[in-house]
Amino acid sequence: MTREECEALDAADPLRHFRDEFALPDGVIYLVGNSLGAMPKAVTQRVATAVNDEWANRLVGGWNSARWYNQPTDLGDRIAPLIGAGPGEVIVGDSTSVAIYKAMAAAVRLQPGRRVILSDLANFPTDRYIVEGLVKGLGGDYRIRDIGDLDSALGDDVAAVLLSQVDYRTGARRDMAAVTARVHAAGALMVWDLCHSVGAFPIEVGEADFALGCTYKFLNGGPGSPAFLYAAPRHHESAENILSGWYSHADPFAFETAYRPADGIRRFAVSTPHVLSGIALSAALDMWERVDLHEVRAKSVALTSLFIDLVESSCGRDLTLASPAASGERGSQVSFLHDNGYPVMRALIDRGVHGDYRAPKLLRFGFAPLYLRYVDVYDAAATLAEVLGKELWRDERYAERLAVT
Amino acid sequence: MTREECEALDAADPLRHFRDEFALPDGVIYLVGNSLGAMPKAVTQRVATAVNDEWANRLVGGWNSARWYNQPTDLGDRIAPLIGAGPGEVIVGDSTSVAIYKAMAAAVRLQPGRRVILSDLANFPTDRYIVEGLVKGLGGDYRIRDIGDLDSALGDDVAAVLLSQVDYRTGARRDMAAVTARVHAAGALMVWDLCHSVGAFPIEVGEADFALGCTYKFLNGGPGSPAFLYAAPRHHESAENILSGWYSHADPFAFETAYRPADGIRRFAVSTPHVLSGIALSAALDMWERVDLHEVRAKSVALTSLFIDLVESSCGRDLTLASPAASGERGSQVSFLHDNGYPVMRALIDRGVHGDYRAPKLLRFGFAPLYLRYVDVYDAAATLAEVLGKELWRDERYAERLAVT
Repeated sequence: MTREECEALDAADPLRHFRDEFALPDGVIYLVGNSLGAMPKAVTQRVATAVNDEWANRLVGGWNSARWYNQPTDLGDRIAPLIGAGPGEVIVGDSTSVAIYKAMAAAVRLQPGRRVILSDLANFPTDRYIVEGLVKGLGGDYRIRDIGDLDSALGDDVAAVLLSQVDYRTGARRDMAAVTARVHAAGALMVWDLCHSVGAFPIEVGEADFALGCTYKFLNGGPGSPAFLYAAPRHHESAENILSGWYSHADPFAFETAYRPADGIRRFAVSTPHVLSGIALSAALDMWERVDLHEVRAKSVALTSLFIDLVESSCGRDLTLASPAASGERGSQVSFLHDNGYPVMRALIDRGVHGDYRAPKLLRFGFAPLYLRYVDVYDAAATLAEVLGKELWRDERYAERLAVT
Repeated sequence: MTREECEALDAADPLRHFRDEFALPDGVIYLVGNSLGAMPKAVTQRVATAVNDEWANRLVGGWNSARWYNQPTDLGDRIAPLIGAGPGEVIVGDSTSVAIYKAMAAAVRLQPGRRVILSDLANFPTDRYIVEGLVKGLGGDYRIRDIGDLDSALGDDVAAVLLSQVDYRTGARRDMAAVTARVHAAGALMVWDLCHSVGAFPIEVGEADFALGCTYKFLNGGPGSPAFLYAAPRHHESAENILSGWYSHADPFAFETAYRPADGIRRFAVSTPHVLSGIALSAALDMWERVDLHEVRAKSVALTSLFIDLVESSCGRDLTLASPAASGERGSQVSFLHDNGYPVMRALIDRGVHGDYRAPKLLRFGFAPLYLRYVDVYDAAATLAEVLGKELWRDERYAERLAVT
């Protein structure tokens, strides 16, 4: 593949016009959209309006007139189609970690007599950490079992299983429907972490019991934008939210002394939403209403496959592919191993190609099809080849560690 | 007191210049700063910079260069002096409800063998709701006891006590030091909810074990700005955060499989901060660095006393004072009871005097000394007298209920 051929692919790309809707700095090829998505230009005006009109002028009246009070369910209803869910099935708020806590606590409490939570060692660490805290709080004989092989880990003591659809390190993608069916066959409930999936390709929550994810990666909701939580309608009456703050009450503004859970998905809210963070997400979701996720997936497969081909042909002896070679088994991310991964990534970033590094050896590259071009992939691979071929990463400037790497 | 005398008080007010730093709509006397504070004008530029420079241009690099990663402790260190705490003792993030959950779970788990949580019926409802959920999750023989009289409620079965320093309905203010000493004498831990105190007057957390509060009321952090949580240094090593997300890990970016708590206050973080909501708070805190809280308290006492005097002299037979008559026992809020409180408040708002209503009969008026003038108090009382004297609240338009009241 030549750079000219990449230009031709860009010219024919049905998603090409979305790139103009993003604020992207000059001279940067941004391959970290799987960590923090780029900013939709519409955010500028939407956030300014929220501050200078809604807050400044409407003051506390904004809870009604600007629909701040409804933000958790309004945003949830807009995320629902991205994960194959319906209206009233998704709520937005809090962080992913808090969403995991709520979902896992609810799932475990629906399963009296079962005391084991299965968590994958390949889950993003906070998933495991949160389950540790939950188990500690629950006391008694609750415990965690880390999954090696799912089938041998499943037993009649397993209450719930927490898995990521896409592995945050390797980008490996699981078959949600098949895994959910196996977990259900063992009598356990299935909770999916969709952090590295949502906005990267079409998702069908299907028979899952709960699902959750963050909105600042492929959805471009902004740094620390609120998380989403899906609960299957069959659990809306029976599941309990142990983080039972006032926004989950049946009638919050009655200020009743005792707790009564709201009907429907609202019982999984906690408290006053972080409005400004939700507003930026709202602007990002405006764009998603016009996006065909099947087109996103097709371009994602093309971009990741192109990157793997170019990198392996130009610097295959220096790097080991850590992602699945088969595109059907990948999310929208490609990872390689290198013994000096940290300085390699610093050298790349210094040359305008932004990926990230995960200890001890992983170079991660995310591909957000709404704002990445085929020529970006071509140029990124060429820069990586230069950094490795000329050993530019040996520059001592690249050894210094930053707080967030 | 005449309107001219109020003008003279405004001219001599040492805090008068702060009013110019707020964006306040024309024709509104805003007495809801105890619910959602007005917007500091500096927020406009700070939020625009966060979006258009930090997010758009620095992208994921903002976690380092814009100190997003440090936001929870940076903001905490700036709130600390407002509550009599030191650096490294306060962390910012999540919602007040989540902060209550973390604090109460930590307190209870520090007290093995004690199974009762005391919660005041006068607490804001979410405090009670959250404790209900916590007790449910903890299982076993944990239980809640609602406080009537504190001394008779305290016993050797009480693990921890959760109280609000200022009552959200009446504005009644407790003596923190005295209550904390009584609770400690009974062997229990003391957790203070400072939602309706912080920014209203100087606070000394003193010997309290934990304290928390929201930042969108008197601190003016914006709708749903993140909460703060104080933990006494003596608990930093021994207390556990059962919402043990990755931001509370000793080394989050090592991505270790097992949880290890961070040292110090950071162990009470949970997850990725809601950056944009925190940024607005940051702009508000810039102003607080220049504020003398003793001046705030002196003006608050003067404003609330003036309002009570004016209202009682002009419409005393229609209203019953629900707040303490003694200024030393009040926060920065005045409440009255009226059998038709809801339409009375709607009629007031329709005439530019914004207070709020809490079922079944409460009219609440908050007094934020940084942007309220003595003449505002005078005019608000005159409008209230007119609404009641002419029974303007009987207009049928004011009967319709809004979602958030």
